Amino acid sequence: MLNRVRSAVAHLVSSGGASPPRPKSPDLTNATSAPPAAAPETPKSPPARPGSGSGASAKTVEARASFSRPTFLQLSPGGLRRADDHAGRAVQSPPDRGRRLPWSTGYAEVINAGKSRHNEDQACCEVVYVEGRRSVTGAPREPNRDQGLCFYYWGLFDGHAGGGAAEMASRLLHRHIREQLKDLVEILQDPSPPPLCLPCTSGTPDSSDSSHLIGSQSCLSSQKEVTHESLVVGAIENAFQLMDEQMAQERERRGHQVEGGCCALVVVYLLGKVYVANAGDSRAIIVRNGEIIPMSREFTPETERQRLQLLGFLKPELLGGEFTHLEFPRRVQPKELGQKMLYRDQNMTGWAYKKIELEDLRFPLVCGEGKKARVMATIGVTRGLGDHNLKVCSSTLPIKPFLSCFPEVRVYDLTQYEHCPDDVLVLGTDGLWDVTSDCEVAATVDRVLSAYEPNDPSRYTALAQALVLGARGTPRDRGWRLPNNKLGSGDDISVFVIPLGGPGSYS
Amino acid sequence: MLNRVRSAVAHLVSSGGASPPRPKSPDLTNATSAPPAAAPETPKSPPARPGSGSGASAKTVEARASFSRPTFLQLSPGGLRRADDHAGRAVQSPPDRGRRLPWSTGYAEVINAGKSRHNEDQACCEVVYVEGRRSVTGAPREPNRDQGLCFYYWGLFDGHAGGGAAEMASRLLHRHIREQLKDLVEILQDPSPPPLCLPCTSGTPDSSDSSHLIGSQSCLSSQKEVTHESLVVGAIENAFQLMDEQMAQERERRGHQVEGGCCALVVVYLLGKVYVANAGDSRAIIVRNGEIIPMSREFTPETERQRLQLLGFLKPELLGGEFTHLEFPRRVQPKELGQKMLYRDQNMTGWAYKKIELEDLRFPLVCGEGKKARVMATIGVTRGLGDHNLKVCSSTLPIKPFLSCFPEVRVYDLTQYEHCPDDVLVLGTDGLWDVTSDCEVAATVDRVLSAYEPNDPSRYTALAQALVLGARGTPRDRGWRLPNNKLGSGDDISVFVIPLGGPGSYS
Repeated sequence: MLNRVRSAVAHLVSSGGASPPRPKSPDLTNATSAPPAAAPETPKSPPARPGSGSGASAKTVEARASFSRPTFLQLSPGGLRRADDHAGRAVQSPPDRGRRLPWSTGYAEVINAGKSRHNEDQACCEVVYVEGRRSVTGAPREPNRDQGLCFYYWGLFDGHAGGGAAEMASRLLHRHIREQLKDLVEILQDPSPPPLCLPCTSGTPDSSDSSHLIGSQSCLSSQKEVTHESLVVGAIENAFQLMDEQMAQERERRGHQVEGGCCALVVVYLLGKVYVANAGDSRAIIVRNGEIIPMSREFTPETERQRLQLLGFLKPELLGGEFTHLEFPRRVQPKELGQKMLYRDQNMTGWAYKKIELEDLRFPLVCGEGKKARVMATIGVTRGLGDHNLKVCSSTLPIKPFLSCFPEVRVYDLTQYEHCPDDVLVLGTDGLWDVTSDCEVAATVDRVLSAYEPNDPSRYTALAQALVLGARGTPRDRGWRLPNNKLGSGDDISVFVIPLGGPGSYS
Repeated sequence: MLNRVRSAVAHLVSSGGASPPRPKSPDLTNATSAPPAAAPETPKSPPARPGSGSGASAKTVEARASFSRPTFLQLSPGGLRRADDHAGRAVQSPPDRGRRLPWSTGYAEVINAGKSRHNEDQACCEVVYVEGRRSVTGAPREPNRDQGLCFYYWGLFDGHAGGGAAEMASRLLHRHIREQLKDLVEILQDPSPPPLCLPCTSGTPDSSDSSHLIGSQSCLSSQKEVTHESLVVGAIENAFQLMDEQMAQERERRGHQVEGGCCALVVVYLLGKVYVANAGDSRAIIVRNGEIIPMSREFTPETERQRLQLLGFLKPELLGGEFTHLEFPRRVQPKELGQKMLYRDQNMTGWAYKKIELEDLRFPLVCGEGKKARVMATIGVTRGLGDHNLKVCSSTLPIKPFLSCFPEVRVYDLTQYEHCPDDVLVLGTDGLWDVTSDCEVAATVDRVLSAYEPNDPSRYTALAQALVLGARGTPRDRGWRLPNNKLGSGDDISVFVIPLGGPGSYS
């Protein structure tokens, strides 16, 4: 996420942020199968990173945690140092020996070329058991029914302005999802449509009789059928929101703020379906029989321009008199007052000319193109977790109101297609996708997997490594370069390869 | 648009609204090739329609105009009576003799089965000449260059709560588009990229030198390239907004209000490209070599739920303490207070349970499904023109703030494909699409066109008639029924069939 947050880090009070927080409710400290991340006991002060500005106090720097990498990498202290080496940029994967990741998932990562002190990406891969709460529907329990549910979980978190948010999300987001699913365990296992209303715990059972409805209008007397699938989607959406709120509450609870923010790309496999939830600019694609199926879209100032502009238009106080919600194709100059310039507002996808007025000279809320696009000249992603303390540079204007923590969730039904071992779901942070197209990824999938036996579980790790290496390139001509001599990605790069029909997948 | 505005008509002060208004600026009364619609000189009072409520005063009813049909139908007084006959529901098309519509466009329409006094659909088909204004770029004019531009124009307008808005839009929207294009005539004919900034008329010419830009940040020093195509899109978007504003201003100017509102589906052909602009629930598809290419999407309380809910959330005063922005799968009952019910808010696509609180007992901002979906229990479309006086039933709460007049514009490049005479763009009001799928339309296209010689220009009218007849059905068992015995559409039905490679198309 190269250069994503420009100078804004100067406004952040970063923190240790390493040991698990104690949320009031729900209690996420309860054990899942997830082992706690390697939480450093002794915070060490990293050197101030380039561009972090002098605004970060010594105390802040001191309080910053040393970095950690995903537990499943099983890094020794020496391995951890190698993973943290910007010069070597060694690709990291779980060890070939010992316990594999669920479904024989492949994983690889590499640190950035120097844009930040540590690798600010984080990852998580877990099998999570959800124990149902006591009967929520009021129906008597069947004694022999298994009360719990399992879901498989993969998460990629691409941090910016510090690694705190990404690390916290990698430790806790799946627990929030588990909490949200607890009330649904019974409902999801019942093939009948979910009850629209649940009795209160003390309570009278729900009457589904619609003859008591108020209003005779047909739109008011109707009743929507809600699917099991949409309950899981709602659970994931709310888990993202609660994760984000928990980050905001950290200061109150523990006297420190969560450092920075992060994009979150999460996969949940539950009851035959794959849910891909994305908030940020990571990306997920399925490569199935050579065909590419996009499973996410990116949320950036460009793709969310109209949402951002609408918010600035409806709540002008959020612009603080410093910004205009209008977009111009380039910065307006004072000498152009009275001339006509192209613009577009929250309602337009096309462009039109308008006469330049004084307030058009303000900074544009949204500006730039591609990787240079920014909200309030500061941040290049518009969805994610954290960033509660992010301010406009040299200003106290908060940016968080423009950011959304809600993911878009896409659902893929694994049972609708007979998958072969070469069918995979690929997740990558933008370090991969900045220099690799979907088609190039599909070609690498084909090339690498065909070099291995279909039942060799190491093939997915080899594929993840090939993808990371292909995006990183090799050191040459004073830079990391791809075979075509273009620059490779200098960003952190992290990749999951999830086999959809491989050995051990959804077993 | 059967039953779209429930009771709300009681709140409308309707009007003559028939003779062309006199906008201050731009002056739209200037002639195009469009002949004025048959504007009735003597308003007559139609009988109160069923369901219009007793709230409409006698004066209101008296002031309502008699109806008119598109001029290109060339209806005699007798023909006009037949077109207005709910019992016969004769299909109307332009006469086979005489001048055809541009591109040999086919058109057919039929009145509703009694849901409103008159056919509230309107249509327009024109060739519009745009004369350029004096040089806007400041460059000297080339003496021999043709200064003007022509565009082909088709519009379908589906009125509700009266025919005034649809009639006004059918007479004036293309003139607003022409006005917006006037400044672009020179720019669109110049193959170089459009200038980002135009000099003021008195003024210094624009310097495109970006070295004067304020701010060193990369996002601020960048310069976007804007395409000719996006200028046309912007012109159409702004024309819709100006049309809507003109409807609002009618009361001030002429002491009456424009009656009701309308969906607008508009096609502009300009310089090799087809622009399809849709605001409402009409639909456009291209059938090309049997393949269906959707050229619009519908804007309804269901498809725009999150936009509506966000607005209600950010501006709760718009809900007037009467509505909740949350959606529930059915109406919440007072006895369910404290129980948990499924809901979703502006951020969610999935559903989750929440404890029912007092304010959840308010009417939902969005409710119902499919054709019964409503905003504020009143209106079933969320984009269109007019509706400035629409209020919630038995309330003074305005609904207009939730409605958008902005179309979505899709562009189709006619030069990118060799079209044959069987390739058509089909536009229809919801009367067609409520009972006819895209595939059924494509099958009818194939069946009807293959029965005619490719160069027979009457084939497109025959196709439009077949589509209208297929949606209307025949009178049987006390209703209009389709061959499968299901009910046909009781709504007004209007269809354009625009050949993309037929005789005379884009000549």
